[in-house]
Amino acid sequence: MDYRFSQKMSTMKPSVIREILKLSSDPSVISFSAGNPASETFPTEKIAAITADALAVDPVKCLQYSVSEGYPPLREELVRWLGQDYGIDFSHNSLLVTSGAQQGIDLVTKCLVDEGDTILVEKPTFLGALNTFRSYNANLVGVEMEDDGVDLASLEQAIRSSHNPRFFYVIPTFQNPSGIVTSLAKRQGILEICRRYGVLVLEDNPYGDLRISGQPVPTIKSLDETGRDVIYLGSFSKLLAPALRVGYTVADDALMAKLVVAKQTTDVHSNSLAQIICAEFLTRWDVHDHIALLQEVYRKKAGVMCSALDTYLGGKVTYQKPQGGLFIWCTLPAQIDMPTFCKEAVKAGVAVVPGNAFYVNEEETCHSFRVNYSTPTDQQIVDGVQILAKIVENSL
Amino acid sequence: MDYRFSQKMSTMKPSVIREILKLSSDPSVISFSAGNPASETFPTEKIAAITADALAVDPVKCLQYSVSEGYPPLREELVRWLGQDYGIDFSHNSLLVTSGAQQGIDLVTKCLVDEGDTILVEKPTFLGALNTFRSYNANLVGVEMEDDGVDLASLEQAIRSSHNPRFFYVIPTFQNPSGIVTSLAKRQGILEICRRYGVLVLEDNPYGDLRISGQPVPTIKSLDETGRDVIYLGSFSKLLAPALRVGYTVADDALMAKLVVAKQTTDVHSNSLAQIICAEFLTRWDVHDHIALLQEVYRKKAGVMCSALDTYLGGKVTYQKPQGGLFIWCTLPAQIDMPTFCKEAVKAGVAVVPGNAFYVNEEETCHSFRVNYSTPTDQQIVDGVQILAKIVENSL
Repeated sequence: MDYRFSQKMSTMKPSVIREILKLSSDPSVISFSAGNPASETFPTEKIAAITADALAVDPVKCLQYSVSEGYPPLREELVRWLGQDYGIDFSHNSLLVTSGAQQGIDLVTKCLVDEGDTILVEKPTFLGALNTFRSYNANLVGVEMEDDGVDLASLEQAIRSSHNPRFFYVIPTFQNPSGIVTSLAKRQGILEICRRYGVLVLEDNPYGDLRISGQPVPTIKSLDETGRDVIYLGSFSKLLAPALRVGYTVADDALMAKLVVAKQTTDVHSNSLAQIICAEFLTRWDVHDHIALLQEVYRKKAGVMCSALDTYLGGKVTYQKPQGGLFIWCTLPAQIDMPTFCKEAVKAGVAVVPGNAFYVNEEETCHSFRVNYSTPTDQQIVDGVQILAKIVENSL
Repeated sequence: MDYRFSQKMSTMKPSVIREILKLSSDPSVISFSAGNPASETFPTEKIAAITADALAVDPVKCLQYSVSEGYPPLREELVRWLGQDYGIDFSHNSLLVTSGAQQGIDLVTKCLVDEGDTILVEKPTFLGALNTFRSYNANLVGVEMEDDGVDLASLEQAIRSSHNPRFFYVIPTFQNPSGIVTSLAKRQGILEICRRYGVLVLEDNPYGDLRISGQPVPTIKSLDETGRDVIYLGSFSKLLAPALRVGYTVADDALMAKLVVAKQTTDVHSNSLAQIICAEFLTRWDVHDHIALLQEVYRKKAGVMCSALDTYLGGKVTYQKPQGGLFIWCTLPAQIDMPTFCKEAVKAGVAVVPGNAFYVNEEETCHSFRVNYSTPTDQQIVDGVQILAKIVENSL
């Protein structure tokens, strides 16, 4: 028989990034295109020790069905840590463990968005979120970014010209793909404007721990003294390891009741062993020591990438020095056609992601590309940038 | 601010079963209400050995981002096994690893169902599936069951009186909650009728390995020589352990391309360590030996439950002797009010699930309740049935 797909899914295509990822799994291609954390940061021995202990001491806890809300000791550890380090108040909020923060984006969208409803996003923004929003047939509106976060006047304008937008999706710290850190003033401005128009803020913070310079800026969630106006997403993907698929969503209790029902219908609960690994890691060791290690690795790798860009592409590429995260947003002179550049780069053995992949409208012209410095080795970074430099030279 | 939920989620309530599960986590309550496999069947030492090896030999494979389709060696092992034992032909079909079969139900619904579209289900059927369908605002139509599966005339009638139903969801082997095995003739009839009207069959087979008597019946999927008309769902939840959250979906390649995109937007990929555990288990050991062990445990437990029902409720309860699975569907005389009976049972220390929880319309009267024999100990089975018998006696 012939298949008729749902309207929401009928226009969906495979994610550009995941297709590029597949290409870049060719070991001869230097991958600047992934969003993978550096594998050398994985605390493998600690994870192995926790796993062995858990299976020896209480296998039923590791293997039997559990509750949808998440493994209770993990939820307790997170409430403690997020309260202490991220200023999140749990007096009227609770925490749901999700299968990666990606599932948090999915469940929030499922609970809040009808087909055709508007979602506001930063321009550019995380492709994985855009695709989730698209899979619910949402109307997406991108809001222009400045060096210190979204342009507030454009945000207000976008809200006013949309019919009842459901939420504003924002990655305020080390944004993917731009690397931008939203300033405190703009975080306050975002909350004030969204609140004034009854628009929720969906704050995604997967990279917050990966600061390599400068001072931490409070989460938008910590500025929301009502507890009702910001939904907060976090993840263990960059802190411990992505294949654990453990993330979390913090929301007001009324909203959480709905999110838990959505979670039940989606995958019942997240993998228990992975939740136990995360909980025990937070319990047995000081997470700040581990974060310091991560920051050291990323500081070094970002330094190598910036040096290479300055050395081989100085005067041709424009970029903001990263304060953290995994990405640098590189802008080339306007006369270089970006899709052609990226295709030539892959052919020459370096995968980068064209900036338009992070736009609501992928057809729009973009003179930037995203590079990742956590996946490649130092040598690959130097070699890869040299290859890119040659292509730029030939294109000018 | 006040929350406005999406239409599809606004009427959703927490699953009755999961709420009952919470009640029955009180250790003083004997739980006949769960759908948990027997914990003593978990191959804990083998899982611990695989995990230790995998983390020692290739930690990056266990911990780094992977592909949405699933861990390739697991997909290969499953293709081999499902081809051999379940007659599934992969020449134009492929397999997606999901976070439990529940996620397969979710993704199939997301890809095929617009709000208001009709889904046909057995009456009664698995509550978890009903809730997933409800969370997409589907129009649900239940089709009456007979002792050997759905009534075919009712199925055809239901299709004809619905506007373009999207699929028929069916658990043909050891159905949850009824325990019914759909006969081969009816499986052929279901496929023939659905095909004639262009309705897909969504075959869910989580219990297929748990046969305790009688001969295996071919899967509906194996009868579908076109490969296009049946989507097949399987799970490791009962075979190895549910908290791994590993299931799989088999579908025609055209449909699979859409399912993979939906999977990407939902949780990127399933937990890798769990997928490696499943793959290695199928590689290192003969799964038939493990299945024989499971069958032995369940045969014994089902025997204890049937003896207790016959001894203490003989002549009052009607039920079909299970050929496998985890459940027995018990019907009481019509003068007993089922919701009252179930409430009194929990108060007296035994949790069972009222049959109407498995109906499309939960308000409809049902004279049956579901008992599970895999979770309680033998002593709890005997004690629990005696408690139920007293309540029945007092209600007549």
